[in-house]
Amino acid sequence: MNKNVLRNLSYGVYVVSTKCDNRPTGCIANSVMQVTHDTIALSINHDNYTNKCIKEHKKFAISILGVDVNDNIIPIFGFQSGRDVDKFKGIETSTIEGIEVLKDSTGYIICELQNQMETETHTIFLGKIIDCEVCKEEIPMTYRYYHQVKKGTSPKAAPTFIENTPAKTENSIRYKCTICGYIYEGDISKEPDDYVCPVCKKPKSVFAKI
Amino acid sequence: MNKNVLRNLSYGVYVVSTKCDNRPTGCIANSVMQVTHDTIALSINHDNYTNKCIKEHKKFAISILGVDVNDNIIPIFGFQSGRDVDKFKGIETSTIEGIEVLKDSTGYIICELQNQMETETHTIFLGKIIDCEVCKEEIPMTYRYYHQVKKGTSPKAAPTFIENTPAKTENSIRYKCTICGYIYEGDISKEPDDYVCPVCKKPKSVFAKI
Repeated sequence: MNKNVLRNLSYGVYVVSTKCDNRPTGCIANSVMQVTHDTIALSINHDNYTNKCIKEHKKFAISILGVDVNDNIIPIFGFQSGRDVDKFKGIETSTIEGIEVLKDSTGYIICELQNQMETETHTIFLGKIIDCEVCKEEIPMTYRYYHQVKKGTSPKAAPTFIENTPAKTENSIRYKCTICGYIYEGDISKEPDDYVCPVCKKPKSVFAKI
Repeated sequence: MNKNVLRNLSYGVYVVSTKCDNRPTGCIANSVMQVTHDTIALSINHDNYTNKCIKEHKKFAISILGVDVNDNIIPIFGFQSGRDVDKFKGIETSTIEGIEVLKDSTGYIICELQNQMETETHTIFLGKIIDCEVCKEEIPMTYRYYHQVKKGTSPKAAPTFIENTPAKTENSIRYKCTICGYIYEGDISKEPDDYVCPVCKKPKSVFAKI
């Protein structure tokens, strides 16, 4: 058995959003697929706050990220918990059917929860599409592109988690947090010694020049 | 509501195979995703023979197609029914856990059926991975690549079906069946008037030069 082959399955990169206690929350997901002409299935880890919130709110949105998405959208939505922070603070959104969707996306799909199937660690949600729209003409980002071109990382809870050391590229003065992928623009050595990543709160030492 | 946005969801291209009445059968699928570290979900139309066979045999395999897959694999597995023909006739396979997997693939995943969820038209199967292996170092084919580079078509039963007219390319003497995508090598005008596509049985008139 060689589980490396699982990396050959193809996925997109999405922000799944919903509402909880009257505020928006969401997370990054890769496991999203159309099932019928008007239903979508997606898989969310039990530990993700978004999982609990979809079960309560019974409605969710999928914002489809493009290849040119702002570099910090994935760290912000993928490496923090909506229990602790308002991930939507400072993010440009539209409110559709009461749910926040990202303006920085190729489009969105709004679903009403129709059914769900539990696994040991994840819930597969089945949603009926109640609205959807194209936002920008941009190539959708694939998970492969995120890893190979953007040199992105995944949270350890993701089924698609791959150990990954960002490769160095030339002609840039940027640093990347090797834990969450947050991009620091400029010379990080000028930051004080107690500087921490604004997303995952890890120390300056985990940043690598990219 | 603009359902064109659904085309921005990213998928791979797979042959899902199983067994029925002691012979192999299978079909093309796009809606496949890893759910936990050892489970895979996939969606198959109720009308597909493979759907009934997975329910009976309770075991299935996923062969992950690469960008250089033989041009006729998708027509053969995607545009015929296993009720009528043995799709595996003449196809190079390995038998793993009693199921045929394609040698012409980037790798395979063998699953035991663990759970299922019904929708109006499709079943979402949840399978526990019992074996998997890398076969070839080749870039996995995405559904987008199949449509945009290979100029492929989808059966009308597929959730991802898009009306598509193949674009002409130069420097080739090949014809493509505009119904199923079967590739005819050579000058089709030399075939008799009653020539039909060997896969979908449509007349010579549906072939377009590519």
